Amino acid sequence: MGRLHLVKKFQQFPDLIYRQSLDCTTLLANPRAIAANRRYIDRDLNRCFGNNDLANSALTGYENQRAREIAAQLGPKDHPNIDLIINLHTTTSNMGLTVLPSSKHPFNLRLAAYLSQLDPTVRVTCGIQCNQNSPMLRSLSPFGCTIEVGAIAQGILDAQLLQQTEILVHAILDYLDAINQGTPFPVPSSLTLYQAISVVDYPRNSLDELQAIIHPQLQFKDYEPLQNGAPMFLSFTGESIFYQGKTVVYPIFINEAAYYEEKIALILTKKHQIDLKLDNFA
Amino acid sequence: MGRLHLVKKFQQFPDLIYRQSLDCTTLLANPRAIAANRRYIDRDLNRCFGNNDLANSALTGYENQRAREIAAQLGPKDHPNIDLIINLHTTTSNMGLTVLPSSKHPFNLRLAAYLSQLDPTVRVTCGIQCNQNSPMLRSLSPFGCTIEVGAIAQGILDAQLLQQTEILVHAILDYLDAINQGTPFPVPSSLTLYQAISVVDYPRNSLDELQAIIHPQLQFKDYEPLQNGAPMFLSFTGESIFYQGKTVVYPIFINEAAYYEEKIALILTKKHQIDLKLDNFA
Repeated sequence: MGRLHLVKKFQQFPDLIYRQSLDCTTLLANPRAIAANRRYIDRDLNRCFGNNDLANSALTGYENQRAREIAAQLGPKDHPNIDLIINLHTTTSNMGLTVLPSSKHPFNLRLAAYLSQLDPTVRVTCGIQCNQNSPMLRSLSPFGCTIEVGAIAQGILDAQLLQQTEILVHAILDYLDAINQGTPFPVPSSLTLYQAISVVDYPRNSLDELQAIIHPQLQFKDYEPLQNGAPMFLSFTGESIFYQGKTVVYPIFINEAAYYEEKIALILTKKHQIDLKLDNFA
Repeated sequence: MGRLHLVKKFQQFPDLIYRQSLDCTTLLANPRAIAANRRYIDRDLNRCFGNNDLANSALTGYENQRAREIAAQLGPKDHPNIDLIINLHTTTSNMGLTVLPSSKHPFNLRLAAYLSQLDPTVRVTCGIQCNQNSPMLRSLSPFGCTIEVGAIAQGILDAQLLQQTEILVHAILDYLDAINQGTPFPVPSSLTLYQAISVVDYPRNSLDELQAIIHPQLQFKDYEPLQNGAPMFLSFTGESIFYQGKTVVYPIFINEAAYYEEKIALILTKKHQIDLKLDNFA
């Protein structure tokens, strides 16, 4: 709801996203879901941009059709009509402000490094599939990112998180405009990057029913280090289930509402320090 | 989702809610909405129990039909088939554990006082319509309460809040059983009660569109005193809108997701100290 509101605000006041050297357009990706006040009608739209699905006209669900329309408008992936996509999302996980680059292209990593320097609460995270083969909307272009904001409940507007998201969007536009104007902003020489390494499902029985939920000690602890032996789940019969791993990981998307159906309780990441070589600047 | 889980757990392990002197049954009120992972199909079920709506068979929406079925099973209001209803709810507002008595009958107030003594974080709140004329499911019986738990996002399970809710349900059953056994638990002689006095909508324009949202300083501040001149809303153009009132109020249901469509941004309450006379004990 927050991301919708921000896009509607930009549509109402286009001056807000005007930059001299940029041609910005806004897109509300799923109008029927918005009208119905639901996340989606038939299927999560942000999983409909895989190459096979886009090419498969036998998929007649609303979101599959809508993905093909959006791909026709913004894509195709190999020579898109647009240069860069900023995809706005909210999550029930306590992700704060997270930038998920569309690919590991140095251009995206430098932009992410700039944003995390500007606001040290911004974290930069790469999904397991951080490239154009992913089924996300952002995969239509190699350039850009998703901005994921939370914890926020579905259906509510959170003033503070809205303000922070809007500031990030403006920072990206200013950064791009400065490059186009030939006066690029300085960018730090390294970047802290959380790399997703694996997905963890909830414990389930043979009927696929949940047998445990996120442990209270882990709830809302996104990006905090998880050590071997730390509690991860609490079973419905009261037992704790512990993380077992030789290395420290940093869980994200803990208890995201939309991920129950995707069988994702949380995603484990590793924390890396990445050098940004200036000669890779695109 | 949390309340559903708890009811399913009680259905799977009926021993949990067995008490010698009680005949307990469980009810999942809106099975079609549960199957669709939505709050409701046509209309909020917990607004369908008004006397006129229950008597109006021309209302053919799923929830209206379901309300009539439930009223036939548990009701009618003037001589219900059951003695007491515990209605479990979650909210995106930061309500902690709130007990909302079905009516101000001394029996309900004494039960609420017992619960808030047992767990001092439990707050007791009466709605504007705290009687059987309300359209809530709990109005089918004069005895009982709603347990409202939050802040929790729709669609997720929160282990800590689930545990706290289950403890409250067990405390209620133990309390009732002790009365039936002739060994009632001691009850404090007074009760702190938050009485709802008015409903505040979001600022809107002539097209009914939101013009402001909950101020960041008020978000998640349910039950905290709101003084004259304190910020209440933040407009989309950046202005703060302040609470104006001669007396201190205690806002609740701040930014509840399901209340946008009901035009409720928050509900103002007054805090009272209530004497519980023992001779009113029912």
